[in-house]
Amino acid sequence: MSLTNASPADAALAAKSASHILQTLSVADRNEALTLIHDSLAAAKDDILAANARDLELARAAAADGTLSQSLVSRLDLGKPGKWEDMLKGILDVRSLADPVGRVTLRTLLDDGLTLERVTCPIGVLLIIFEARPEVIANIASLAVKSGNAAILKGGKESTESFVAISRVISAALDLSLVPNAVVQLVTTRDVIPDLLALDRHIDLVIPRGSNELVRYVKDHTKIPVLGHADGLCSIYLDPSADPAQAAAVILDAKMSYPAACNALETLLVHESALATLLPAIAASLLAAGVQLRCDARSKSALPASPHIIDAVPADYDTEFLSLILAIKTVTSLDEAVAHINAHGSHHTDAILTEDAASAERFMAAVDSSGVYWNASTRFADGMRYGFGTEVGISTNKIHSRGPVGLEGLMIYKYKVRGRGHVTAVYGEGEGKRRFRHESLPL
Amino acid sequence: MSLTNASPADAALAAKSASHILQTLSVADRNEALTLIHDSLAAAKDDILAANARDLELARAAAADGTLSQSLVSRLDLGKPGKWEDMLKGILDVRSLADPVGRVTLRTLLDDGLTLERVTCPIGVLLIIFEARPEVIANIASLAVKSGNAAILKGGKESTESFVAISRVISAALDLSLVPNAVVQLVTTRDVIPDLLALDRHIDLVIPRGSNELVRYVKDHTKIPVLGHADGLCSIYLDPSADPAQAAAVILDAKMSYPAACNALETLLVHESALATLLPAIAASLLAAGVQLRCDARSKSALPASPHIIDAVPADYDTEFLSLILAIKTVTSLDEAVAHINAHGSHHTDAILTEDAASAERFMAAVDSSGVYWNASTRFADGMRYGFGTEVGISTNKIHSRGPVGLEGLMIYKYKVRGRGHVTAVYGEGEGKRRFRHESLPL
Repeated sequence: MSLTNASPADAALAAKSASHILQTLSVADRNEALTLIHDSLAAAKDDILAANARDLELARAAAADGTLSQSLVSRLDLGKPGKWEDMLKGILDVRSLADPVGRVTLRTLLDDGLTLERVTCPIGVLLIIFEARPEVIANIASLAVKSGNAAILKGGKESTESFVAISRVISAALDLSLVPNAVVQLVTTRDVIPDLLALDRHIDLVIPRGSNELVRYVKDHTKIPVLGHADGLCSIYLDPSADPAQAAAVILDAKMSYPAACNALETLLVHESALATLLPAIAASLLAAGVQLRCDARSKSALPASPHIIDAVPADYDTEFLSLILAIKTVTSLDEAVAHINAHGSHHTDAILTEDAASAERFMAAVDSSGVYWNASTRFADGMRYGFGTEVGISTNKIHSRGPVGLEGLMIYKYKVRGRGHVTAVYGEGEGKRRFRHESLPL
Repeated sequence: MSLTNASPADAALAAKSASHILQTLSVADRNEALTLIHDSLAAAKDDILAANARDLELARAAAADGTLSQSLVSRLDLGKPGKWEDMLKGILDVRSLADPVGRVTLRTLLDDGLTLERVTCPIGVLLIIFEARPEVIANIASLAVKSGNAAILKGGKESTESFVAISRVISAALDLSLVPNAVVQLVTTRDVIPDLLALDRHIDLVIPRGSNELVRYVKDHTKIPVLGHADGLCSIYLDPSADPAQAAAVILDAKMSYPAACNALETLLVHESALATLLPAIAASLLAAGVQLRCDARSKSALPASPHIIDAVPADYDTEFLSLILAIKTVTSLDEAVAHINAHGSHHTDAILTEDAASAERFMAAVDSSGVYWNASTRFADGMRYGFGTEVGISTNKIHSRGPVGLEGLMIYKYKVRGRGHVTAVYGEGEGKRRFRHESLPL
């Protein structure tokens, strides 16, 4: 891992070269590098926490001035109970994942002695732009090494001391391994993000990890494919046949378990036949939890008056509140709910609450989102919860990777053809031409 | 299929809505639409060929004026032997392909009663921009209907009469099916390409089919993901251990079987130890076939003098000639060949000729291209030859789809979660928290 003051273009070229070497290393060599990173970080705990304390001191002063948010200070703190241990455990977790490189996903006998294989391989060079969490360096370095990708990291300035301390340790660890040092580079020069985003010839994928504003800025300023999501406007559709207790529990969990999360509930669509039967109890529990309800006229009139129930304006149905506010809208059919979600949602995660299996399946087929759920909280949309071990983000893209993205999302494939001097001109449909065999071979 | 004069934005919105309906249709319904399209086109052969004849008349006049190339006139002609039949057969071929929609590729038991499924689904709305070939409409309409995607088509003006005739027939056929008419729309208004390319909120993927200039223009003018390749600079590395007869045959096929193809050979890298042993016979056969050789000093001095062997300039190693010109360069090692290809190639298809398996495997692991071949012609890079039945193009992208792209490249997936009122707040590592089961279930 280099701590580089190189120009963005030089860093990208070094990353590309390093990725080409990394791709040829065995999984044992890559895992050995992860062991070295883990052990070196464990040995350097005191130094790293001392560096983190210096970042924290500045950040606390900035928070006291009001120039930095308290939540950012909290994300910065590597000394919080369990955080250091989680960071180290994350490296070992990645090490224990199956090797994503070199998996054969298609094998065809094209003709005698001529075989086609589709084999997974790394994408190449990743650019990861992130904000305050210093442990992200260790996570991303592990994922990059394991997946055979090179990574250029650009972190937020609040964590500079921590980043530099961690990357020195990782760099020294990589020097003891067969993995080229330039596989992970931390760019410490300032204001280089626009320059990095312009390097679409050398960088293959950008992963922004941070606020919506960061993601949106990245998406708007690069031709490099971006993996992530700017918005998480998740909806639940309440069908009249929903189980009342389940519905209340799921809606409360989806809104309350972490209101600032991208997979939290923002809009509740209520079938008109559920207004009188199901909505009042659900609304009561939401109000008791401190949620403000922004209702259309029909849903409002189904509820007792309350200062915390106000009239929705159209923009409420396009807003990711990330707070204790919920937009509620009445619909007259499942189709109307689906159309609303497809038009106003962010294609992240949406759920239907119903006891009717046919309605559930129709909803899940028709809603155009990364996650479509039946009788479960939208908050399950998460790589750890899906069993992916680790995630690099949640994608709302329509190509490559969608939903929580694990190691698989950092892979692409190449086609290997092995022949014995085969040429194309002899094949064809005409007289005297050879035909392809195109027989599937076992993987 | 609408023949639309709607604004690009209205066409895209109509496509999005249509795609949402199409996604919920069964494969039987989608295949029925393909049967109707096939039968209607077959019945309308005379009308369509008459329209095509009007396009041809204008095109031949333009070719006589020198304002249109003769090869474009040839591509335009639907009456060429076999072309009409191939177009119709292509529709039935697509109909017979396995349904790409709704394949379950991952199934996990998250907890009792809570399952996760990853299911393939269409990407959404495709924009296909193409040049003269009128049969592309029928191909693309079939692929779109089969894959559950909506397609907006914008064709070259030389084929307007043919396009309009074919799309009227397809439109009438779709009206007899359950597939919404707006699933395939032909935009006939002029100069709308920049407007279409700006619709990144409504269009999910652009597929340009045509010249390098078209592809490059599209890539440079949109934020929508583009599937395709602008360049095809393919190389072959000639190892000293290559079989002489095989090497000559493969190189000749790669250069000569279709010199204007994207998978044709442009650069030959020769190991210094092969200069005296292998190159002279290969060069002789290339010269006999009419190829001009642009050589570095070492390879030139290994060959007898000829007016068709000239000194290479550096730009020759970055040029896709698409004609009877071949750049030749001497390298001192396999690693140098790999580094040259990774730096100067277009990541399309590259081959090694060798009898040494270890060298071949190292080359295939290290070369960062869609296709990496051992003892086979680069011209095998093609969806039909790979056994994909049909292809929408060859991609040199690093994400989503790489190499020849079949129906699979038009698909993405969604995650379906089915629960019984499951909430997230009860899960965790602490005392009294539930653990996920994360058990793989059979597909």
